[in-house]
Amino acid sequence: MIKELAQNAAKAAKVLAVLDEKTKNQVLQDMADALRTNAEVIYAANKMDLAQAEKDGLGAAMIDRLTLNEERVESMAAGIETIVSLPDPAGLERVVGERPNGLKISKMRIPLGVVCMIYEARPNVTADAGALCFKSGNGVILRGGKEALGSSKAIAAVLQDVLQKHNLPVELITVVPDPDRELMMELMQQDEYIDVIIPRGGEGLIRHVTDNSKIPVIQHFKGVCHLYIDKDADLQTAIDLLVNGKTHRTGVCNALEGLIVHKDIADSFLPLAAAALQSKQVKINASAKAAGYFENPTVIEDDAFGEEYLDLEIAVGIVDDLDAAFEHISRFGSHHTEVICTKNELTAKRFQRTVDASVVMVNASSRFSDGSELGLGAEIGIATTKLHAYGPMGLESLTAEKYLVSGTGQVRA
Amino acid sequence: MIKELAQNAAKAAKVLAVLDEKTKNQVLQDMADALRTNAEVIYAANKMDLAQAEKDGLGAAMIDRLTLNEERVESMAAGIETIVSLPDPAGLERVVGERPNGLKISKMRIPLGVVCMIYEARPNVTADAGALCFKSGNGVILRGGKEALGSSKAIAAVLQDVLQKHNLPVELITVVPDPDRELMMELMQQDEYIDVIIPRGGEGLIRHVTDNSKIPVIQHFKGVCHLYIDKDADLQTAIDLLVNGKTHRTGVCNALEGLIVHKDIADSFLPLAAAALQSKQVKINASAKAAGYFENPTVIEDDAFGEEYLDLEIAVGIVDDLDAAFEHISRFGSHHTEVICTKNELTAKRFQRTVDASVVMVNASSRFSDGSELGLGAEIGIATTKLHAYGPMGLESLTAEKYLVSGTGQVRA
Repeated sequence: MIKELAQNAAKAAKVLAVLDEKTKNQVLQDMADALRTNAEVIYAANKMDLAQAEKDGLGAAMIDRLTLNEERVESMAAGIETIVSLPDPAGLERVVGERPNGLKISKMRIPLGVVCMIYEARPNVTADAGALCFKSGNGVILRGGKEALGSSKAIAAVLQDVLQKHNLPVELITVVPDPDRELMMELMQQDEYIDVIIPRGGEGLIRHVTDNSKIPVIQHFKGVCHLYIDKDADLQTAIDLLVNGKTHRTGVCNALEGLIVHKDIADSFLPLAAAALQSKQVKINASAKAAGYFENPTVIEDDAFGEEYLDLEIAVGIVDDLDAAFEHISRFGSHHTEVICTKNELTAKRFQRTVDASVVMVNASSRFSDGSELGLGAEIGIATTKLHAYGPMGLESLTAEKYLVSGTGQVRA
Repeated sequence: MIKELAQNAAKAAKVLAVLDEKTKNQVLQDMADALRTNAEVIYAANKMDLAQAEKDGLGAAMIDRLTLNEERVESMAAGIETIVSLPDPAGLERVVGERPNGLKISKMRIPLGVVCMIYEARPNVTADAGALCFKSGNGVILRGGKEALGSSKAIAAVLQDVLQKHNLPVELITVVPDPDRELMMELMQQDEYIDVIIPRGGEGLIRHVTDNSKIPVIQHFKGVCHLYIDKDADLQTAIDLLVNGKTHRTGVCNALEGLIVHKDIADSFLPLAAAALQSKQVKINASAKAAGYFENPTVIEDDAFGEEYLDLEIAVGIVDDLDAAFEHISRFGSHHTEVICTKNELTAKRFQRTVDASVVMVNASSRFSDGSELGLGAEIGIATTKLHAYGPMGLESLTAEKYLVSGTGQVRA
C-alpha cells in the first residue's frame, strides 16, 4: 500500500514537472478560494479531531496548535496567495560559461520530485507544504500525526478537488491515511520514489526519522540562539533585541536562549538587562562572573550552557573578547540563528563571516529568522545541517540544478 | 580512535574556514611543487602496493588504476594548479533583498565542514580530494581501499608536510590508517563531526555506505547514458556522437549504453550506425524492430534494456516519437547523462527541459560529462540523486550558503 502510494506520487510528479507557471498559479489561486469556500467542512472535521484530543487528554498547547478557526483558515488561504506571487524557481536557467571547444554550459533549476513531510499535530502544514511543493513542481506525501488526521484529510480533499478540476493527478498531494508507525517505517524505505524527507516536530521525531530513513532527511534539531553584546553595542538596541528575542514568543526555535556580553560593556549593560528581564519575569541562569548583576540568579557551571529552554529563561555569560564569543557560540550554539549587537562595522562583518549558523544577524531580533520574515513567502522547514539547504527553506530549496550542454557535434579526443 | 580522528578533523576545519584565498592558493601551489619534488618517495610506496597487489592476484584493470608513474604524478600536481586558478567559492556573498522593515538579507557561501571520501584503489583521489576540499575550506578524511593504502599515505604525507610548514593543522588532510571494515562502520556514525560522505567506486560500495551511514551520502550509482537520434538529426553528427560516446572509453560512467532512434530516421541512420559499430566490434543488443538493421544482433525484450555494459556493447531501440523517447529514458536511464542529436532547436529545448538527468546534452558527446570538461576544474564526484548536488561536483558543491541579516535594531511586533 505504502509503496504504491509513493509510486503514484512519483508518477504524478512527472506530470507536474513540465507544467507552466501560469497554470500552476491558476490552480493555486483556485486552492486558496476553495479553502475559504469549504471552511465549514474543514471545521467539522477539525471539531472531531478536537473532541478526540480532549478525550485523550492532550495538553493545552497541543490543542491550540490543532485548532482551526476562521482566522487560521484565512491565513492558510492567504499563504497560498503569497506563494502565487512568488516566482517559480523551476525552469530558471543560468549561464555557466562556454568551453574552449565551443560547448555552451548552463544550469537549469528543476523540481526535486517527491517531498515527504513527517510532522506532528499542525493541520496547516497540509496546505502550506501542499502549495509550496505544487508551485515548485514537486509531489508531496503528507504524513501527519494521528491527532490532526481528520483535519489534514479534509484540507487535502479540498486541494485535491481543485487538482481534479484542472485534470491533474490527485496523487500530487497525498495524505498517508493511517498514522501507524510501521507504515511510517515503510514510507522511509521508499528511496526509489521519494527524494527527500522533511520532518517537523520535536527532536525525538527528527532523530527517529534520521536514524531510520533510507531517503535523505533535512534535519532541524533545535534552536539554541545567542545574542552577543559587543563592547561597541548601542545599549538601547541591545536591550530591545534581548527583550524581543527572549520574550516575544518563548516556545519557538528562533527565541534567544543565551546572552553573551563583552566584559568591557558588562558594567553598563548588564544592570539594564537585569531590570528589563526581571520586569518580564525571565529566570536567569548565569555564570559566576555574570551572576552578580542579577537578583536571585541560578549560578551555572560552564557545561550547563547550551540549554534550549523554550520558556522565560535564559543563560548569561561574560566573555573577554570577540574570539571568546566565537568559541562560546561554536560550543553551545545549534547552527540556527546567532545575533551580534554592535555599532562597529568591522566587528559585525567578522561576526557574520566567522559564525557558523544558518542565519547570522547584526542588530536585528533573532525572531526574524523564519521564511516569511526573510522574504521567502512560506517556509517548508528550517535546516540546521548544511547539506542541500541551510536555514529557512523556501521554494528554491525544493529544487535542484541540472547541467545543460549544447554543442554542434563535438566529440572527445 | 576513529571518533578522535573525526573530532580532530572538525577542529582543524574551523581553522581553515576563515583562511583567506591568497594563503590557500600559496599552500596549494606548494603542494603541487612538493608532489613533484617528492615523486620518488611516492613511487617507492606505490611499488610496495603493486608488489602486494600482484601477490594477491589483482586483475589488470585494478593494477592499472593503482599504478603511479611520472605522468600520473605530474597530472596530480597539474590538477592542484588548476584548482589554484579557480575562484574560491567560500565567502562569496549575494544580495537576496531588502525587507519592508529595512532588514537587508544576503547569502554567503561557506565550507561544509568535514568531507569524508570512501573510495577503492585510486591513489590520485588522495591529492584531488585533498586539494579540492582545502581550496573550498573543508577538512577531508580519506578512507581508501587497502590496495592503495601505502601510496595514499605517501601522497598525504607530502601534502601534510606542506600544511605543517604553513603552520596549519595536518588533520585537514587525514588518511584513515587502517582499512578495516569495522572502523569504516564507526566512521560512518560520526555525524557530529563529519558533514558529508562521498563514496566513489562500484554500486556495491555505494549501497553499503548509503545503507549504513548516519551522515548524509552523495550518491552516484551508475551511468546508463542514452543517445537519442531525433528525426531531424544530422546523420554525420549522429554517427560521430554514437562512436565517440560508445567506444572512446568503455569502462566509464559517461559512456553510452543505449541508442534510441526515431522511427522516421531509422532507415537512413541505422545502416550507417550498424557499419560504424561493426567496424569497432561493438556487440549489439536490439529490439525486434531494430534488429533487422544489424548483422548478428542479440534480440532483447523490453525489460532487458537499461543495462550498464561498461564494455563494447550497446542496446538499440526504435521509438515512435519524442514522447516515447522520454518514456524510454525515464524507465531505463540512471539520471546521469542523456544526449539528443537534432537540428531542430525546439525539439532540443524540449529534450533539455523534460529529461530528468544530471547532464542533458544537445549535439555533444556524452563523454564530456565530467567536471573538468564542464569547466569545474577537478571533480570530487558525480551525484545522480538531486539532494545538495546533481551531476559533476566541483568546488561550489563543497559549500553551503548561510543567511546574513543586517538591521538597525529592528524587533518583531
